Amino acid sequence: MEVKVMKNILGENEKIAEDNRKFFRDKKVFVLNLMGSPGSGKTTLLEKTLARLTKEIKVAVIEGDLFTARDAERIEKQGVPVVQINTAGGCHLDAAMVQRAAESLDLDKINLLIVENVGNLVCPAEFDIGENMKAVVLSITEGDDKPLKYPLIFKESAVCVLNKIDLLTFTNFNLEQAREDLITIHPQIEIFETSATKDIGIYNWCEFIIDKLVSSSY
Amino acid sequence: MEVKVMKNILGENEKIAEDNRKFFRDKKVFVLNLMGSPGSGKTTLLEKTLARLTKEIKVAVIEGDLFTARDAERIEKQGVPVVQINTAGGCHLDAAMVQRAAESLDLDKINLLIVENVGNLVCPAEFDIGENMKAVVLSITEGDDKPLKYPLIFKESAVCVLNKIDLLTFTNFNLEQAREDLITIHPQIEIFETSATKDIGIYNWCEFIIDKLVSSSY
Repeated sequence: MEVKVMKNILGENEKIAEDNRKFFRDKKVFVLNLMGSPGSGKTTLLEKTLARLTKEIKVAVIEGDLFTARDAERIEKQGVPVVQINTAGGCHLDAAMVQRAAESLDLDKINLLIVENVGNLVCPAEFDIGENMKAVVLSITEGDDKPLKYPLIFKESAVCVLNKIDLLTFTNFNLEQAREDLITIHPQIEIFETSATKDIGIYNWCEFIIDKLVSSSY
Repeated sequence: MEVKVMKNILGENEKIAEDNRKFFRDKKVFVLNLMGSPGSGKTTLLEKTLARLTKEIKVAVIEGDLFTARDAERIEKQGVPVVQINTAGGCHLDAAMVQRAAESLDLDKINLLIVENVGNLVCPAEFDIGENMKAVVLSITEGDDKPLKYPLIFKESAVCVLNKIDLLTFTNFNLEQAREDLITIHPQIEIFETSATKDIGIYNWCEFIIDKLVSSSY
């Protein structure tokens, strides 16, 4: 019974996600769905990403949070258009939320739309929002067992950003093991090591995004 | 429509949770629901908690994970009875899962049952499993903005464990602000500072659990 309800909701979501994908393609906007646990450093990574990317391309951001507009306020300071979605307790963004949020952005002036999902390593992976690429941020302080324990989000993501790499020596995180597990789960996954607060690895991560955007001819 | 479905599921869950609560009370078993983000340190905290508590009381553990029995294997080494629930992708434990898992434990020999929920700062807070007390683990490395961004889980929890306190100096976590926000959200919340890996603050946290158990006359 529960499964049936879930499938109906997902079926409806997939239809809207396809509409979104077509809409974004027509507007020539590449959409990146940025996911990860609460506190993995998504917003800080996004701040540093915007600081670099906005020199070359036009970016807008959709921020997903249960409550508050704290992240959107941080992103606004980077001088990019930003829309906050509050899910009012909901654990993920869905395609309809993104559709409504995108309506209030002038997409004709934008090449890249980054959607920061709700902090959650489970539910966001199940909901297509019409993105071109999913990325998952895993912080070193979360532990190297997370890929095997939460495999879906790593399977779905084209790229995994191992953030807070500056704290590696203060933890028992086994980088080799994590890389091995990530590749077992998703052989094609791209892996970047960053410290958003210490500005480490941001250049390579941003070049990767630009490459993806260019190769999609957006 | 979606909301209605959700309410039905929750209504059904609440009935089973009440059955669980009555069942556990009859068995004189105090139930602690341990929640927190992926990588907040729940399992390590639990290992250290068991190492101390099992000297004084009989404890059993239910481990909730999407996949793998990694956490249960770690807990088993502490010499306590443990049951693993795999949600197969599900983002939280519900009362029916806990009911089935409890059936395979000999509760007549136990005073305290600790249920480690799925790593998630959102969904577990919405599902009563028939516990006596909810506790939320927030690690310092997740950031001090989490109470205001994910208020429900902090409202629902009698206690918040601020874990990884040994990493405080390597982050920009504002302890005073976090405490203030926690108390704004939930004035009666008890707050403990711990480092499970460095064995800091475990004594006070364990004494608190024992006090709760004794004052419930279990």
